[in-house]
Amino acid sequence: MYSYKVLFDFTQSVFKKIGLAQEEAHQAADILMRAELRNISTHGLMRLPEYINLWKNKRITVSPRFTVVHETPSTALVDGGKGLGLVTAPKAMRLAIEKAKTAGTGWVAVRNSYHFGIAGYYAMMALEHDMIGISMTNANPLVAPTFGLHGMLGTNPIAMAIPTGMQPPFVADFATAPIARGKLDVMEENGKEAPSGLLNDKYGNPTMDAGILKENGALLTLGGNPETGGHKGFCMTAIVDILSAVLPGANFGPTVVPTLGYVKDKTGGEDKGIGHFFGAIRIDAFQTAEEFKSNMDLWIETFRNAETVPGREKIIIPGDPERIAEQENREKSIEVSSQTLMKLKQISEELELPFFDSI
Amino acid sequence: MYSYKVLFDFTQSVFKKIGLAQEEAHQAADILMRAELRNISTHGLMRLPEYINLWKNKRITVSPRFTVVHETPSTALVDGGKGLGLVTAPKAMRLAIEKAKTAGTGWVAVRNSYHFGIAGYYAMMALEHDMIGISMTNANPLVAPTFGLHGMLGTNPIAMAIPTGMQPPFVADFATAPIARGKLDVMEENGKEAPSGLLNDKYGNPTMDAGILKENGALLTLGGNPETGGHKGFCMTAIVDILSAVLPGANFGPTVVPTLGYVKDKTGGEDKGIGHFFGAIRIDAFQTAEEFKSNMDLWIETFRNAETVPGREKIIIPGDPERIAEQENREKSIEVSSQTLMKLKQISEELELPFFDSI
Repeated sequence: MYSYKVLFDFTQSVFKKIGLAQEEAHQAADILMRAELRNISTHGLMRLPEYINLWKNKRITVSPRFTVVHETPSTALVDGGKGLGLVTAPKAMRLAIEKAKTAGTGWVAVRNSYHFGIAGYYAMMALEHDMIGISMTNANPLVAPTFGLHGMLGTNPIAMAIPTGMQPPFVADFATAPIARGKLDVMEENGKEAPSGLLNDKYGNPTMDAGILKENGALLTLGGNPETGGHKGFCMTAIVDILSAVLPGANFGPTVVPTLGYVKDKTGGEDKGIGHFFGAIRIDAFQTAEEFKSNMDLWIETFRNAETVPGREKIIIPGDPERIAEQENREKSIEVSSQTLMKLKQISEELELPFFDSI
Repeated sequence: MYSYKVLFDFTQSVFKKIGLAQEEAHQAADILMRAELRNISTHGLMRLPEYINLWKNKRITVSPRFTVVHETPSTALVDGGKGLGLVTAPKAMRLAIEKAKTAGTGWVAVRNSYHFGIAGYYAMMALEHDMIGISMTNANPLVAPTFGLHGMLGTNPIAMAIPTGMQPPFVADFATAPIARGKLDVMEENGKEAPSGLLNDKYGNPTMDAGILKENGALLTLGGNPETGGHKGFCMTAIVDILSAVLPGANFGPTVVPTLGYVKDKTGGEDKGIGHFFGAIRIDAFQTAEEFKSNMDLWIETFRNAETVPGREKIIIPGDPERIAEQENREKSIEVSSQTLMKLKQISEELELPFFDSI
C-alpha cells in the first residue's frame, strides 16, 4: 500500500525524465493516478511500461505539436503529432469545451495519437462547465465483429459524464466489449476461467480460456452471439472506431499499430496513430442547467431507490463505485500489484530515478 | 403479398383521414412503409393501430405546433406539441441538418412527442448532405437496469448513418436492449421460447418465457448479467434515456406514459411525451468528404471480406440486410401478417376508408 502522493510524484518524475514538460508530466501523472484512485488499475500505473516502450522505440514524441488541421464553429480536427494521448487528449477536450461555450456544442476528433488512459477523465472535464462530456477512442484490435474469426476492433471505450445537482454526477465509462483485456489477464494469472460466451479460439470455437487472446483468439462483441444481441455490440464498437479513427484519419480497425506483442501488425507500414473523439454539450444550449440538474437528481434517485432482484441491495448508478473508491483511496492508500511494482522498479533503474520504496 | 404502392396509399389515407395535412400524411406513411421495405415490420404497419388509439384517446394532436424553445448555433430544444413523432421528428432532423451546415454539427432534442417509427429513417436523412446522421429515442419502460427488478427503461434505439463512396452507406439502427419487444411477441405467437439470459420474471428469476413482459417480467440489458457486461448495456440504454428525455425535459425512464396496456403507469399524471435526440455531423467539418468516404469504403471492404467463423459466409455490415430487403421489396411485393391485416381492416371500417383488398 502506497500513498497517493508518493505514487503521483514517482509517475510524474518518470514522465519528466523521458522529456515531457513539467505541466504535461503533471497532467499525464494526474490521468494515470486518477485511474488508480478510481480502482481502474488496468489503466493506471500498469500502463507506464507500455508508454516507456513507445518512447524507447521512438514511436512517440515527448513534445508533440498539437495542430488544429481544420475547424468550424462546433468542430475541430486535431493532429496529435505522435504524442501520447495523455498529453494530447486533455488539450483536445479543452478545445471541445471552448467550442461549446460559443457554439452550444464542441466536437474534436484527433489522429496521430496514442493511448490516452481512462476515457472517463476527459468526459469528466466537462462537468465543472455544466456540460455533458463525451470521450471515446479506438485501440488494439482484439474484438471480432459478429461472425468474424479474428480480432478487428479495439475494446473501444465510450465515456459520458453528465452534470447533476445534489447527486454526484452520472459518469459512464465502459469498454464496448463485454470484458476488459486487463480483467482477462488477471483471470489468467489467477488460473481462473473466463465466463462463457465471451471468447473464441483462433478457429472460431467458443472457449473459456482467459489467455486465449495471446493464442490468436478473439473477444466477442457485447451481447455475444446474434441471438443475444451481439450484432448490436458490433454496431457500438464499430461506431466508436469510425468516429475516433476514420473521421480524423487515424489508423482504424485491424490497421491500428499494435502495442501488444501478440497482436499481428496489419498496418501495411502506415502509422497515423490511434484516434480519439471528444464532445462537450452545454446543458443550457437546451434548457437551464438548474432545471436539467434537478431532473438528473430525480433520475438518479429513481433508479438508485428502485426495487432490486433477490440478493442485490442496490442498483448501481454509473460512476458510483469509482467515485466511492476515489474518496477512500485518496484518504487512505493505494494497492499496487507486485507485478506492477516490479515493472516500475525496473523503470526507475533504467531511467536512474529514485524508487518510491526509498523516497 | 401486397405492392408497395397499395400499402403506401392506404397508410397515407389513414393519416389524412384522422386529420394530418397532406404533406405530413405523406411523410408519416413514408416512414412506416420504409420500415416495411426494410423488413423491420415491428415498426411498420403493425404500429398503425397504436397511433390510431393515441388519436382516439386524444393523446396526440394531428396538427401539432413545432416550437423551437431555445437554440444556439449548433443546438435546438424543440417542443413537439403532442404530435406524433412521425410528424415532428423529420422536422427536427431537418433542423439538425440546417444547423450543421453553418455550425459544423447540429443537435436537436425534442420533448412532447410520441413514437417516431424506425430511428434509422432520420439518421439516413443526413446522408445526402454528406453528413453523419444520428437519432435516438426513449420508449415504454420494459428494460430492467442491472440488478433492478422492474422494467424502467425503454428498448431505446440508437441509429447512426455514415456516408460512403462506392460502398452502400453504413447504417446501424438497433435497440440498445438485446432483443426487440416485437420479436418476443412473434416468438410467443409461435409458441417458441426466448433465448436464455434475456428475460427475468416478476420475481427477478431468469426465464425463457417470451410472453413474460405481459406478466410484469422485464428485459435484461444488452450483455445480460454483469459478468458478461450487462452493466455496459445499462449505461448505453441510460444514456439514450438521458439525452432523449432528460435533456429536452420529456418523461424519462419509468415515468414514460405507457402505450402498452400491460405496462404500469408511473407518470404521476405528468405527460411531457417521450423524447428524441437527433444529430448531424458534417463530414467536411473534419476532413474532406471525398477522403472520408474513400476511407469508409476501405473500412467496409476490410470487414466485409474478413475471415469468418465456421458456418458463416460473410461479416454483415450494419445496414446490409435492410438495404437488400428494401431493393427486393420495392420491386416485388410486401408480406403483411394476417394479424396486422385484420387490424388494418378494422381501422378501414372504423374510419370508413376503402380497404386495399378492394382497391
